[in-house]
Amino acid sequence: MDTKKILLPESEIPRQWYNIVADMPTKPLPPLHPGTHEPIGPDMLAPLFPPALIEQEVSQERWIDIPEEVRDIYRIWRPTPLIRATGLEKLLDTPARIYYKYEGVSPAGSHKPNTAVPQAYYNKLAGTTKITTETGAGQWGSALSFACQHFGLACEVYMVRASYDGKPYRKIMMNTWGADVYPSPSIRTAAGRGILAAHPNSPGSLGMAISEAVEMAVHEEHTKYALGSVLNHVLLHQTIIGLETEKQLEMAGHFPDVIVAPFGGGSNFAGLGFPFLRHHLAEGKKVRCIAAEPTSCPKLTRGVFRYDLGDAVGMTPLLPMYTLGHNFVPAPIHAGGLRYHGAGAIVSQLLHDGLIEAQAHDQLTCFAAGVQFARAEGIIPAPEANHAIATVIKEAQRCKEEGRAETIVFNLCGHGHFDMAAYEQYLAGNLVEHEVTQREINQSLALLTTPLING
Amino acid sequence: MDTKKILLPESEIPRQWYNIVADMPTKPLPPLHPGTHEPIGPDMLAPLFPPALIEQEVSQERWIDIPEEVRDIYRIWRPTPLIRATGLEKLLDTPARIYYKYEGVSPAGSHKPNTAVPQAYYNKLAGTTKITTETGAGQWGSALSFACQHFGLACEVYMVRASYDGKPYRKIMMNTWGADVYPSPSIRTAAGRGILAAHPNSPGSLGMAISEAVEMAVHEEHTKYALGSVLNHVLLHQTIIGLETEKQLEMAGHFPDVIVAPFGGGSNFAGLGFPFLRHHLAEGKKVRCIAAEPTSCPKLTRGVFRYDLGDAVGMTPLLPMYTLGHNFVPAPIHAGGLRYHGAGAIVSQLLHDGLIEAQAHDQLTCFAAGVQFARAEGIIPAPEANHAIATVIKEAQRCKEEGRAETIVFNLCGHGHFDMAAYEQYLAGNLVEHEVTQREINQSLALLTTPLING
Repeated sequence: MDTKKILLPESEIPRQWYNIVADMPTKPLPPLHPGTHEPIGPDMLAPLFPPALIEQEVSQERWIDIPEEVRDIYRIWRPTPLIRATGLEKLLDTPARIYYKYEGVSPAGSHKPNTAVPQAYYNKLAGTTKITTETGAGQWGSALSFACQHFGLACEVYMVRASYDGKPYRKIMMNTWGADVYPSPSIRTAAGRGILAAHPNSPGSLGMAISEAVEMAVHEEHTKYALGSVLNHVLLHQTIIGLETEKQLEMAGHFPDVIVAPFGGGSNFAGLGFPFLRHHLAEGKKVRCIAAEPTSCPKLTRGVFRYDLGDAVGMTPLLPMYTLGHNFVPAPIHAGGLRYHGAGAIVSQLLHDGLIEAQAHDQLTCFAAGVQFARAEGIIPAPEANHAIATVIKEAQRCKEEGRAETIVFNLCGHGHFDMAAYEQYLAGNLVEHEVTQREINQSLALLTTPLING
Repeated sequence: MDTKKILLPESEIPRQWYNIVADMPTKPLPPLHPGTHEPIGPDMLAPLFPPALIEQEVSQERWIDIPEEVRDIYRIWRPTPLIRATGLEKLLDTPARIYYKYEGVSPAGSHKPNTAVPQAYYNKLAGTTKITTETGAGQWGSALSFACQHFGLACEVYMVRASYDGKPYRKIMMNTWGADVYPSPSIRTAAGRGILAAHPNSPGSLGMAISEAVEMAVHEEHTKYALGSVLNHVLLHQTIIGLETEKQLEMAGHFPDVIVAPFGGGSNFAGLGFPFLRHHLAEGKKVRCIAAEPTSCPKLTRGVFRYDLGDAVGMTPLLPMYTLGHNFVPAPIHAGGLRYHGAGAIVSQLLHDGLIEAQAHDQLTCFAAGVQFARAEGIIPAPEANHAIATVIKEAQRCKEEGRAETIVFNLCGHGHFDMAAYEQYLAGNLVEHEVTQREINQSLALLTTPLING
């Protein structure tokens, strides 16, 4: 009987992260100042991030050491298992070999602690005493609360008001790890007070919450800000997922034909995909890396590649992104982690250069895939992960049609324990679909005045 | 750096369960017919359970083979990790070595699938097409739904009405795995209709739900009933926990001085403890096995050892139990899995013979322990598991006072992802304590007319 789970001992937790920038044929474009449109220097990021993270943000080094203090905390849940989806293979009657890397075993229940822990660590080193951040559905806020707790840092989370009211359990998880959680917009910041003055009943948005967290970080002493995706250093930290997976697949004697991961800002996808893509870039070893995004927020499949703001209100630099425009308001799908208007600079460049692929799936297809998976494999996936599963099912069916025994690997980035209300809606037939018209996208993009990207 | 997690490969999943009855100096007393008070034969259990489980219920064999089909499903999450609680040790500044066996990695989030899977398997073998059961907070119902799904059996769960209304997410988890869940009392059974006629707004109880599940199993064709604790075969299946732990501790070069597990009906405690107690019974190798129960349901520390019903309404045989009386209604503490009036026959006999110990903790102490653990170790425990943690903290403090580097091992039987409302109450200072007076216990016990046990 083949092994169901491929495990690594703790001694095999990688000692370095992989920085794909070193191997990219076209390097990512620099961030620009939102006023001058000139490239910004690392010093402009100093009010928000500690020096080590800014260094990583601009580094061209291929390998970057993981501090022992970080590996020590990783050991609570890493290495994560690589699991053969034997039940799903059987259900689909496919010749494909399907594996999933299960990141839901972390205390916070997703891959987010992979970057939360080093971010908290480097802040601690730099004398930071408090980190602020925003969170939507709460995965990122949970992960940062957990990480700050370990290093004795205060953690202040601005949680989108609609989520704060509607999904209280993630908030309590953060409180249990000692974080302070405020509904955003709040009266704690000028940004929040301004919004509340105009819209007293505002349900909030990720953009507003970012503005509040950034404002607090800039104005309070020894306080920095942390972001859970998009930026280069965040993608870097997540490569630990793919580096472990590579070792695990070697043990099984396979190299993937297809890599699949959900796509929000890019860190989930980069985490699993980049360590494999490196063999493609460096040795020409072919692997298809597919980013799975929601049809309701289709920046990769229907967006444009140009400079855009990272937030909704203009407090961040301009980043080179596949974007729907920073004014685009994604529909309230349950995969809150994928409701972001743009893709990070590295991933955008790779897509532009034809080195990665993207697929979009609607919400109903994704939940159907998630329930199929839960019944075949046991684990109930997070709504974000369901997007990857929908792609995997499609690829496995193609393998069946073509009679090809390809190896498909995907990132099961989190469990769905805090998303049962979404499953209830789906099972009751009450889940609504959110179509995006081309006109909506055009309208959002028409508002952009930011520089175009040539090529 | 020492290893944080001790992992076993899948090939080390035990091939046999351990039946402690073979090694008990005094064998457990037989169940009695509730009417005649005569010992009942295995045939009387046939309407409820398939032959293989009845055989296991009365077996005196020391080792019982685990079917390959069951081991195959165990491989989804087993072997579970044994984790060194380095963070907790540091926090308590204790010379004790503290380890926890983490059963929360199962898809259902607790140790319950260890017995749900073989119960579903043996039912499938016997031609059963549907299994009925009761569930309180939902851990057991989730586990059985997951197991039935794997073997293509229908699963019908009677969920205590108060939990059904108040804790809907466990219900949706069961639905996701294809089970039908009904609030109990329901109009589907004579028992339920009778209760509803007298009490239209009854919030239900575990006793009522058992009556409904048993009634359906008896009256419907190809339908059997399953229980999640108390019975000998359930304890047997859970010994896989301790058998794995034994191998893992050997790898670390330790034998436990103290074993701790939460106590509801006994299967959690037996699962971790019995494989170690066997060395005590067979070789005189000393180990203290401590059952941790709530002060609000103190059957081991304040109950009496006598025959009593397994349910509240008299549909089960009489079992020899440490009991508070089957009319005892435990206070609505959050550790729903520990709200049972009696202890299984084997565990009761062992306690009576002085071979195991028991400690009771109040709810506030347990949640304080759980939050300490979550902050020190990351994982947020189920309220049931917090009882074990409270005992572990007490024992670790004793080790500090005595300057002894004892090895303490406990069962972290589940995560608290579905119990965040309880943590919220605790963190907000709104958790109430439930004292049980001696008068309440005496009143409940005075209603018993069942046979006393001599000695």
